[in-house]
Amino acid sequence: MLTFHILSRDVDEYRQLIAAAQLPGLDFTSEPAHAEIVLGEPRLIRDALPRLSALKWVQTISAGVEPLVDPAQRRDYVLTNARGVFGELMSEYVFGYLLFHEKKILARMRAQQSMQWQRPESGVLRGKTIGLLGVGSIGAYVAGTAKHFRMTVRGFTRDSEASPDVDQYFHGNDLLRFAEGLDYLVCVLPRTEDTNKIVDARLLEALPRHAVFVNVGRGNAVDESALVKALNEGKLAAAILDVFDQEPLPEGHPFWTTPNLYMTFHTSAISYPTDITRLFIENYHLYLDHKPLKYVVDFERGY
Amino acid sequence: MLTFHILSRDVDEYRQLIAAAQLPGLDFTSEPAHAEIVLGEPRLIRDALPRLSALKWVQTISAGVEPLVDPAQRRDYVLTNARGVFGELMSEYVFGYLLFHEKKILARMRAQQSMQWQRPESGVLRGKTIGLLGVGSIGAYVAGTAKHFRMTVRGFTRDSEASPDVDQYFHGNDLLRFAEGLDYLVCVLPRTEDTNKIVDARLLEALPRHAVFVNVGRGNAVDESALVKALNEGKLAAAILDVFDQEPLPEGHPFWTTPNLYMTFHTSAISYPTDITRLFIENYHLYLDHKPLKYVVDFERGY
Repeated sequence: MLTFHILSRDVDEYRQLIAAAQLPGLDFTSEPAHAEIVLGEPRLIRDALPRLSALKWVQTISAGVEPLVDPAQRRDYVLTNARGVFGELMSEYVFGYLLFHEKKILARMRAQQSMQWQRPESGVLRGKTIGLLGVGSIGAYVAGTAKHFRMTVRGFTRDSEASPDVDQYFHGNDLLRFAEGLDYLVCVLPRTEDTNKIVDARLLEALPRHAVFVNVGRGNAVDESALVKALNEGKLAAAILDVFDQEPLPEGHPFWTTPNLYMTFHTSAISYPTDITRLFIENYHLYLDHKPLKYVVDFERGY
Repeated sequence: MLTFHILSRDVDEYRQLIAAAQLPGLDFTSEPAHAEIVLGEPRLIRDALPRLSALKWVQTISAGVEPLVDPAQRRDYVLTNARGVFGELMSEYVFGYLLFHEKKILARMRAQQSMQWQRPESGVLRGKTIGLLGVGSIGAYVAGTAKHFRMTVRGFTRDSEASPDVDQYFHGNDLLRFAEGLDYLVCVLPRTEDTNKIVDARLLEALPRHAVFVNVGRGNAVDESALVKALNEGKLAAAILDVFDQEPLPEGHPFWTTPNLYMTFHTSAISYPTDITRLFIENYHLYLDHKPLKYVVDFERGY
């Protein structure tokens, strides 16, 4: 039997969903020390690591795994994260805000409030250019939706060029060339050393003034004061931020009141237990067959 | 030579675009009486009809052609309207508002204004059901975007079942069954006798209370007082209206102040001269070759 433990606020829902799948040889244990397999939230698992003496495989319910790839933590197990499930949620979020901007939804609401029949033209996504900072499974999904809306898609990646929906790839020193002429810059980068403040004053300066910046990756990617400055000086049309260097955002942080800055408090993609369970079941069968698991995290790389 | 006249506010742009295409045998005339072919806006063309003594073919720049199918007007020419060009614009509009609703964009803005880190769950389009009242070229395009977002798509049509993106078709007396359980009801119907107040109290009553109604078709399709009542009584989550029985919407109309009603003043799809010119060129070649034109309007049916 393979012993199995859950460390999540949604433990009851996960137990029920996984029990319903009747996975062969899987035995639930409420005792962490007995568990060979653990499913759950990175932070809770990190706190339990010292007690997880039988641990061989961790499946996280999130894409971000920062607490577990922290160099201070043990790395003597296989870590798989949740990928391929957040793309559609992130894409709904990103395009919700892109269309909110193009369709001038706020301006229409204000016209209605002042009882004015006003018909300034809406913008269109069709023909616009979106730049993706990071093209993993989430970026690739966003690229697919951008193509559905007939946008031009640029991708900035470390080296991969895997998505067929990206029209042009950029790497390394080409970051400013990547930014030039973008209508939308969307950051989907994970938190790593390499992504620290990649969205800095120079990058923001390279964007057209009508550009909109969206961050659904991690807050560390943004030089927050440079972003506030760019928005205050009208060098950027808007910023949509779901993630922040410090969460919850501290009281008194300038983001709360920066013009044309919209915040969504880390809600762009939620882990739905049905999605995660599907992924877990798939990986469990691979684990049973001693095959390589899907979405194995490289502890060094951090994702 | 085929003489050709333009009746549009954008006459200069159209002349330039069409001249650039160097269409064989096409000769621009500024004299309506000489024109065999007219391109333009239905209302302007209707006003000019008595003077258009050489008229054989009208290409409109809009999908709606109400002024020209009015039984009081002559019908001794071929009328083609603009189709296949508004689908993507309408789709951007519709999904802009669907996502605006699901992603709780207003609630997030209010949280930010009150400096509250609030994380109520966003909704998702994935798995929701959208019902299309009318599945012509616009409805079919909206259906395609709905499929991209993994929604279930129902279509209510007179008889056609042409779009592969519609999961289930309804006709005739099945309107209430069509409405049952819909998350979104989107009207893309043209103005005809048959569509008058098709969205009435009974249809609104058949929708779930969490449903959202979107009208990008024509205003005549809606029983406006029934809609106001449904919204006031909370029997509908929201209505997004681009079109109205009377436009501009009269001062004092209850729509201006009905809760959860969002108006956009007939801006959901704009005729872009480049789109329309492409269509005109395609049809012009068919006309030259004495072949049937694309998007011929049936005067009786009205679209």
